[in-house]
Amino acid sequence: MKANLVVHTQSHDYPIIITSQCDMAKEIAPYIKGKQVMIVTNTTVEKLYLADLAAGLEEDFEVMSVVLPDGEQYKTQQYIDTIYDALMDNHCSRDVTLVALGGGVIGDMTGFAAASFMRGVNFIQIPTTLLSQVDSSVGGKTGINHPKGKNMIGAFWQPQMVLADMHTLTTLPQRELSAGMAEVIKYALIMDETFLDWLEDNMAALMGLDKVALAEAVARCCQYKADIVAQDEREAGKRALLNFGHTFGHVIETHEGYGQWLHGEAVAAGMVQAAQLSHKMGWISEAQLQRICAVLISAKLPTQPPSIDTQIALDLMQHDKKVKSGQVRLILLKSVGDAVVTADFEPKLLEEVLASCVPN
Amino acid sequence: MKANLVVHTQSHDYPIIITSQCDMAKEIAPYIKGKQVMIVTNTTVEKLYLADLAAGLEEDFEVMSVVLPDGEQYKTQQYIDTIYDALMDNHCSRDVTLVALGGGVIGDMTGFAAASFMRGVNFIQIPTTLLSQVDSSVGGKTGINHPKGKNMIGAFWQPQMVLADMHTLTTLPQRELSAGMAEVIKYALIMDETFLDWLEDNMAALMGLDKVALAEAVARCCQYKADIVAQDEREAGKRALLNFGHTFGHVIETHEGYGQWLHGEAVAAGMVQAAQLSHKMGWISEAQLQRICAVLISAKLPTQPPSIDTQIALDLMQHDKKVKSGQVRLILLKSVGDAVVTADFEPKLLEEVLASCVPN
Repeated sequence: MKANLVVHTQSHDYPIIITSQCDMAKEIAPYIKGKQVMIVTNTTVEKLYLADLAAGLEEDFEVMSVVLPDGEQYKTQQYIDTIYDALMDNHCSRDVTLVALGGGVIGDMTGFAAASFMRGVNFIQIPTTLLSQVDSSVGGKTGINHPKGKNMIGAFWQPQMVLADMHTLTTLPQRELSAGMAEVIKYALIMDETFLDWLEDNMAALMGLDKVALAEAVARCCQYKADIVAQDEREAGKRALLNFGHTFGHVIETHEGYGQWLHGEAVAAGMVQAAQLSHKMGWISEAQLQRICAVLISAKLPTQPPSIDTQIALDLMQHDKKVKSGQVRLILLKSVGDAVVTADFEPKLLEEVLASCVPN
Repeated sequence: MKANLVVHTQSHDYPIIITSQCDMAKEIAPYIKGKQVMIVTNTTVEKLYLADLAAGLEEDFEVMSVVLPDGEQYKTQQYIDTIYDALMDNHCSRDVTLVALGGGVIGDMTGFAAASFMRGVNFIQIPTTLLSQVDSSVGGKTGINHPKGKNMIGAFWQPQMVLADMHTLTTLPQRELSAGMAEVIKYALIMDETFLDWLEDNMAALMGLDKVALAEAVARCCQYKADIVAQDEREAGKRALLNFGHTFGHVIETHEGYGQWLHGEAVAAGMVQAAQLSHKMGWISEAQLQRICAVLISAKLPTQPPSIDTQIALDLMQHDKKVKSGQVRLILLKSVGDAVVTADFEPKLLEEVLASCVPN
């Protein structure tokens, strides 16, 4: 099977091609302008897919590659410099195309390198994790972490195309499949209760790597995100809803050190915290809160954050990009499938939610 | 006197305010959104203008500053990181406004930091050199140097407003005034022979710091550039003409080490080389070539590059951003006031021009 959807952005439109299994080189070649291709990947994905992709492109293009270490802790300026150095050492010109072959970290870094090399060159994404297929394929967010905050440095930069090949999920560790499923579940919680019904019915197939079910889930998530981003490319309004669970999740990731909790795991626990606060405000019922926990558990995801001192958590929240003039804004649920951005919550209720994860 | 012009760009319109002497804080305050202001300046400009500007803003805003060392050699990733650190340490949020107080280096770096901090925040430019007033005020080019090439890392990012105060030119060393005049002369050579007539008539007043003449020259240059950029924000076509003299000039700067030749000095010598090649191709006359040298000399600018081996110069040209798939493209003069971008020149003639600067 093969599904296409087109993403509309302010700068240009591009396709997302979703396949069960494909010849990657053949799929991306039509979207490469110019002669030079720089593939950016990591040490894990390199072993699985780099040789075939490079070989498939070599007949028509000058193919180069740069291999970064694998992990969120390497999503730093230092490794952006590694990409710049590779581009300069190989005499790459303004018509080079960067290809991100890997998960979200590789996609974010390659995208930011593409956004900033010579003030912007083309790039193509081949996301090889479920998380990056549903999260990074749409929206043009690229960037790196700062020692004091996640994703603090970056740019909005749109790819020329995205290739999501479900076959790559068969080589993904189960823990990362689950982490990606957290973002899938997020779309249901903020956008569409009927998608939550679908996920509850199909979670066994999804976790069992049924490619048809996976492609369906990926396509639906990309479409949800594309609809939001088309309305709001630079995150002035509705796009912020996509950060459901992320303010809480970023606290977990920053506090525990990048790479200890997977992003999706932190988002899963963060969504439960956001749902708890929504419940304390009288918006969602205890039964809805339990339903949210249950679907996360069926995807083998954590529903409890680690122990973090409440004051430290509040301080870390101040560093979140959604803070406006010092005021923390959160995405909360009016009901399942209906999220809002708000700074209008009782600070005491937020503290209760944060405190409930500290052991007595 | 006070002149305003409005620059139209794809993302938004913004004003350039050109004054003889003003209260900087009062002029920029209406363009600051949010409460946080981070002024970026260097050790030289700090002593002249920082205290007054900060004091003028402090009543209405939370004012912070970061002071970088002065010089092109500091236009590097390391000092972008210094700006990021200042933003993070001061808990700056997405609605912070960065203010670039200084010349082209400060403008380029502040703009790139603004483009990449939290994927883009507002910035305002207060260019304090003639070069930055006529060159960096329009076009949204921001960036830094890579050890292997000038301006290789960066972004297109537009300011909220630009304030060009002619009074700041009275504190500028004469050598830097001349360097800025190179870019002023450039506009005449590529765009408008009548402006070259005007410059010949008014060069004594300009070099004597007559503020009315300076404001007239700055306004005309900004208008020329705004007209070009409005047509071609991302440098697909006509905008490349603004790089007249720059491919040759970049060779000089890279070879001699950043900071030895001022950018404008290198551009002046580079424009003479480009004019020499245009003459060798039968496009401009010997008299026109001499006229170009004469106006540069009247602005106390060099018309001879330093001695550089021809093969090294050719290799350095390959790194230029205007190279398309390995082919060097140059901006040459069909006549005075009429420039073209072309890759269609005799390589032998280019080598002759480059070789003529190597002593026998």
